[in-house]
Amino acid sequence: MTKSIFNSLKGNIWLEGLFGLEKENIRVDQAGNLALTPHPAVFGNKLRHPYVTTDFSESQIEMITPPLPEIGQTVGFLETIHDIVSLELTNEYLWPQSIPPILPADQQIPIASYDEEGSEAREYREFLAQKYGPKNQLFSGIHFNFSFSEKLLKLLYLKSDSLVSFDEFKDETYLKTARQMLRLRWLYVLLFGNSPVVDPSFELRCKMAPYPVDKNVIALSIRNSCYGYRNFDDLYPDYGSVQGYKASIDQMVKDQKIAAPKELYSAIRPKFIHNPDHISYFEFRCIDIDPLTKAGISEDALRFLHALALYGLLTDETDDFGPKVQAQANRYHTGVALYGLNSTPFLIDEEKQNVWHKAQAIIQQIIRLFTDCGIDQFGYMQSLNQALQLAKKPESRKVYEVLGGVVKDGYVPFHIQKANEYLTDSRDKSYQFHGLEDLELSTQLLLREAVKRGVSFEILDRKENFVRLKKEDNTQYVKQATKTSLDNYASILAMENKLVTKKILEEQGIRVPKGLEYTSADTAKADFLIHQGKPVVIKPNQTNFGLGITILKENEDEETYRRAVDIAFEHDSTILIEEFIAGKEFRFFVIGDEVVGILHRVPANVTGDGFRTIRELVELKNQDPLRGKGYRTPLEKIQLGEAEAMFLKSQNKDFDTVPTLGEVVYLRENSNISTGGDSIDFTDDIPDSYKQIAVLAAKALNVVITGLDMIIPDVTAEATNDNYAIIELNFNPAIHIHCHPFQGKNRKLNEKLMNALGY
Amino acid sequence: MTKSIFNSLKGNIWLEGLFGLEKENIRVDQAGNLALTPHPAVFGNKLRHPYVTTDFSESQIEMITPPLPEIGQTVGFLETIHDIVSLELTNEYLWPQSIPPILPADQQIPIASYDEEGSEAREYREFLAQKYGPKNQLFSGIHFNFSFSEKLLKLLYLKSDSLVSFDEFKDETYLKTARQMLRLRWLYVLLFGNSPVVDPSFELRCKMAPYPVDKNVIALSIRNSCYGYRNFDDLYPDYGSVQGYKASIDQMVKDQKIAAPKELYSAIRPKFIHNPDHISYFEFRCIDIDPLTKAGISEDALRFLHALALYGLLTDETDDFGPKVQAQANRYHTGVALYGLNSTPFLIDEEKQNVWHKAQAIIQQIIRLFTDCGIDQFGYMQSLNQALQLAKKPESRKVYEVLGGVVKDGYVPFHIQKANEYLTDSRDKSYQFHGLEDLELSTQLLLREAVKRGVSFEILDRKENFVRLKKEDNTQYVKQATKTSLDNYASILAMENKLVTKKILEEQGIRVPKGLEYTSADTAKADFLIHQGKPVVIKPNQTNFGLGITILKENEDEETYRRAVDIAFEHDSTILIEEFIAGKEFRFFVIGDEVVGILHRVPANVTGDGFRTIRELVELKNQDPLRGKGYRTPLEKIQLGEAEAMFLKSQNKDFDTVPTLGEVVYLRENSNISTGGDSIDFTDDIPDSYKQIAVLAAKALNVVITGLDMIIPDVTAEATNDNYAIIELNFNPAIHIHCHPFQGKNRKLNEKLMNALGY
Repeated sequence: MTKSIFNSLKGNIWLEGLFGLEKENIRVDQAGNLALTPHPAVFGNKLRHPYVTTDFSESQIEMITPPLPEIGQTVGFLETIHDIVSLELTNEYLWPQSIPPILPADQQIPIASYDEEGSEAREYREFLAQKYGPKNQLFSGIHFNFSFSEKLLKLLYLKSDSLVSFDEFKDETYLKTARQMLRLRWLYVLLFGNSPVVDPSFELRCKMAPYPVDKNVIALSIRNSCYGYRNFDDLYPDYGSVQGYKASIDQMVKDQKIAAPKELYSAIRPKFIHNPDHISYFEFRCIDIDPLTKAGISEDALRFLHALALYGLLTDETDDFGPKVQAQANRYHTGVALYGLNSTPFLIDEEKQNVWHKAQAIIQQIIRLFTDCGIDQFGYMQSLNQALQLAKKPESRKVYEVLGGVVKDGYVPFHIQKANEYLTDSRDKSYQFHGLEDLELSTQLLLREAVKRGVSFEILDRKENFVRLKKEDNTQYVKQATKTSLDNYASILAMENKLVTKKILEEQGIRVPKGLEYTSADTAKADFLIHQGKPVVIKPNQTNFGLGITILKENEDEETYRRAVDIAFEHDSTILIEEFIAGKEFRFFVIGDEVVGILHRVPANVTGDGFRTIRELVELKNQDPLRGKGYRTPLEKIQLGEAEAMFLKSQNKDFDTVPTLGEVVYLRENSNISTGGDSIDFTDDIPDSYKQIAVLAAKALNVVITGLDMIIPDVTAEATNDNYAIIELNFNPAIHIHCHPFQGKNRKLNEKLMNALGY
Repeated sequence: MTKSIFNSLKGNIWLEGLFGLEKENIRVDQAGNLALTPHPAVFGNKLRHPYVTTDFSESQIEMITPPLPEIGQTVGFLETIHDIVSLELTNEYLWPQSIPPILPADQQIPIASYDEEGSEAREYREFLAQKYGPKNQLFSGIHFNFSFSEKLLKLLYLKSDSLVSFDEFKDETYLKTARQMLRLRWLYVLLFGNSPVVDPSFELRCKMAPYPVDKNVIALSIRNSCYGYRNFDDLYPDYGSVQGYKASIDQMVKDQKIAAPKELYSAIRPKFIHNPDHISYFEFRCIDIDPLTKAGISEDALRFLHALALYGLLTDETDDFGPKVQAQANRYHTGVALYGLNSTPFLIDEEKQNVWHKAQAIIQQIIRLFTDCGIDQFGYMQSLNQALQLAKKPESRKVYEVLGGVVKDGYVPFHIQKANEYLTDSRDKSYQFHGLEDLELSTQLLLREAVKRGVSFEILDRKENFVRLKKEDNTQYVKQATKTSLDNYASILAMENKLVTKKILEEQGIRVPKGLEYTSADTAKADFLIHQGKPVVIKPNQTNFGLGITILKENEDEETYRRAVDIAFEHDSTILIEEFIAGKEFRFFVIGDEVVGILHRVPANVTGDGFRTIRELVELKNQDPLRGKGYRTPLEKIQLGEAEAMFLKSQNKDFDTVPTLGEVVYLRENSNISTGGDSIDFTDDIPDSYKQIAVLAAKALNVVITGLDMIIPDVTAEATNDNYAIIELNFNPAIHIHCHPFQGKNRKLNEKLMNALGY
């Protein structure tokens, strides 16, 4: 990779790639003991679930993200899997540390169980337990899967004037990057290593001194040190070429150093997915779980690692990376892991360099390189500067906070407390798909359920919330969560057309507000006789904010009627005169033959306690984690704005009024959730007779998924022919309002939808 | 109905109602002989087809429109049925005259045949043949079914302060209107009667002189005269009340004057459809087929009849309408029918009035009444004024033109010539649904096919081309002809999203133009290396009129490439750089597993003959009945406008240039049909291998109906992996372009669609 390449290729294209993570977390009980319960059944077959499986032990959950084009998305995806898994555990936590929790005796550590299909997996694990001991298998960590984008590789290839084929060029690129990462990995461990102490139940054996050692060892990253889980022999693969790499590993197997290639615990593994002869991506395996981050890894750490890979690719190699150089790199790596807690200069390699100066120098070189390449993405520059600060001020590294906590509270209590904090956060954010927060909440919820069920998904058009779900031979295209293949197009068009909807419902004997459409004021006025004495709504065909609407509950005065007609015509050239039906409006969510949720919306309000002001009551109510701003949460915070002030004023109140105990004060007239309204679940409170009507209405239009709006004057009375009316059927109803209402149960419509989609 | 009512109810609401027609036409061979062939099998079961059946004879086709809210639609519907039936006959015509064509001997006249289900219908016809003779049964005419709108009736009821129930009020309204129409029907016959002569094969018997009379009788309306088909006895139903009416008819049956109520051939029949005790509408039965109008009845005649009904309703009755008055009205009616050809004053009734003065006076009263009621619809005012002119100038009545034609050419030749003219017109307009010309042609074609197959339909939203089809238990909602229940919503959304479509097709190994999207000019420019040396189209993501698009067939010059990028960015903030694939574009229309039509569009053009100018060639080409203006026809006329002049100028031509023999001159660059382009059918000319790819593409998106655009460089070569490309799949493709191409076969996509919809 010559200078000329990054001189001619400029910009953030350098950052293009695919990023994936695999993380192991031990399940523990609330006292920090390794859980002896089985892997949660909800995640189904361990061999098939793309996101959640087990590693060595039944209690060692492995979470896998798909390759994603941006590190923020990848970390978010991992956090989401973490949330989902956490919420499926009963009285258990995910242990937030690479070093294991309290372990029972070897023979009690449950090896992952499999059905017949998984007998090979089981056998391999038994072999590993035999060879390395089961406790050693419980070191947990994070693997980072990384590839450059095809476009970046293509551009590099075209600019390199390389004489080899494109596939060979890619291999060379990945191998060089791998070699450089192996040389440089100590720097990552130095800054982000975070497995400093062990529980007394864990027996440490140091490879450099292969006998039991003091259990009170304290280090930067025990997992990356000689105490970590590793091969017995020093093994040096050939990273010079694909052929050489494969041959060298085959030789290790032949020599019975390892039983299979996968037993080679190298820091970096090239992966051959699309083609057995060419590298598809590589896996970086030195990442400790970060106990201070719920996901176990921060975007900053991962961006730094990515920057390090680019730096490796774009700087010249100084040696041939044969066994001698590899051994030196390994020593540097384990040395940093073991002694890196020292913030004073320390000397571990032959060069006797000051490790902190060396770290700073490299990071500064990376920053310079990024500038030269025209890479200016804020997140990366921030990560690099942060890394530089860590190198300059080693005691600001997170490992110190962990150590401090362990010293203060004890190893287990500190980590359990963290696990508990994360569980609370997982609960509070159970509506969210991290990294995909720009998607509609309904789609985020659906995708969470996809993850849970092991349904792979792909976002086809992010702005459009258009996704593809796939599990085995069931592929589904879904837009905005509820636009699916379950509904036929003609029914969608019928729902979309209010007049058609009403006509079809009426024919089926289902009550809708009767109405007439007028394009002439004279005709509308002449029809007074028809409407006289009946409660009517006179409204423009299209209206915003309810402008131009008059409700005449008596409609006996012709003058008033005529004026209402004129007012409506001021807002549209077509008006409707409709039967007025008094009552509350309810949203019935129908899937197939079932009403799966019923919701009622109430305008923004607070209930007095006799001593707080309206302002204080609003602030209190807004603390609900479900309330946020900008539709990123199921409910919106109540505003203390002009509209609210005006509405209070109309009630002779202001923000400083103190409502009496139990007094409900409304701050808005409209019941929209977007202006702070409350959503109240009525699913169990509405008589079945109304639900049957809703299902009949859906059947009349031949629709499977619909959000049906029904007015009911008295929910305590059973439905009759004339004590309800259906306003409309929505073909794209939101699901999140039924999953996270202000008041009532989570109706789990994402689960119901996934059922309906056949997953 | 007092004056006060029409004083307080004003406007065209008076015209609201439902209007239906039933017309009989005898099938004849090309020599004018009664056809002895069976009823066309395409129309299926005679008892079930809502639009096309037979009356007495197997050769007497009866065409029935549904009740429609506007007379123009009703007449258009009838004309469309007439067109459809005409085109299904082989070497036969529909005889355009109420008086029969050349008839064989009685025993050879085929009575309508039925299967077992129709045995009752068959028996009744045999009874009629026995009682009245089969020839008399072949008088054919038109029945007009009419009801007032419910809203009009409701308003009249509310304003009338009537003490009876609304249903009884309606009965009273219909009965009064019926009585008045019976009194006034002579006026309709006087103006529009048109059955003046008979063929010698037809034996006339006059009821007033019940012995064979001179066959050379000439009259205004033989069918309405004493020679017409009628009951043997003078029968006077009681029109005073529903109960009285029913009782009087039961008495006739008891007295064996008639075998069943339906044997009573009164001029007006009240109909009881929704409720056996109340009138739903009435049937007016005095209309002669108008030989000068393809549909057999003009809108003008029908509007006049409607106006006459309103006049009857709104004027006071002068007598009790007992048998004596009925007999007098009958005499007046048959008298006018028999003697009404005289344009001089003639005296037929006891009052010895001048019939023309009386006619003029009534029409003037109607016009005055309309003015008083605030009715100002143009069509009605025109009809009334035209009727007044006929009364003032009796020799301008159509019957004279018919008589003149018969005198000149002979009875049979004159009518056969008319039938032949109408058949040509039916062929020329075979893309059209008369009265629904504002619908898209695709929808008109689909509805024609619905009529043919006996599928009832209803227009749910006219502007939206949203219809409901129904036959037996198959109900289908269809919008714009090709948006149906056959397709699932997710597939529609996938087709709608070009990026998603391309992704899915690519995954299936189907070739699409590869491309990249850019939002930054710098990035696009930096990618020159990727695109270099490959033919590309550089274009704004969204573009009108092709602005901002550059095609680089070589793409070796970076400067040109960079300029093209800048130009594209002038038109949109997102641009596409796509592989350019040379070749012709073809529209593949896919239904399910089959490519049912392939079309190629060519820009507006003329082919020289060596002596006509371009202008003359255009005028000649525009005479094609398929070419029209404003999308009412399958092709548009070529314009001689500025755009065409400019495009000719760029070829050093103008409208006066004379192209050489065989020279093709293009007048437009774009191939849109809307600017005069030609549509050329290629269905049989494209190798199956491309059709298979189109079907695979449809399957990949799981769509049933799609219009797929494919580029093919060489249609003589079989498809390979890389000699085609799919541009897009359209979820709402037009069908008319495949049914009525400029060149090639009618691919009958309306039939194919109806098959797919299960009809």
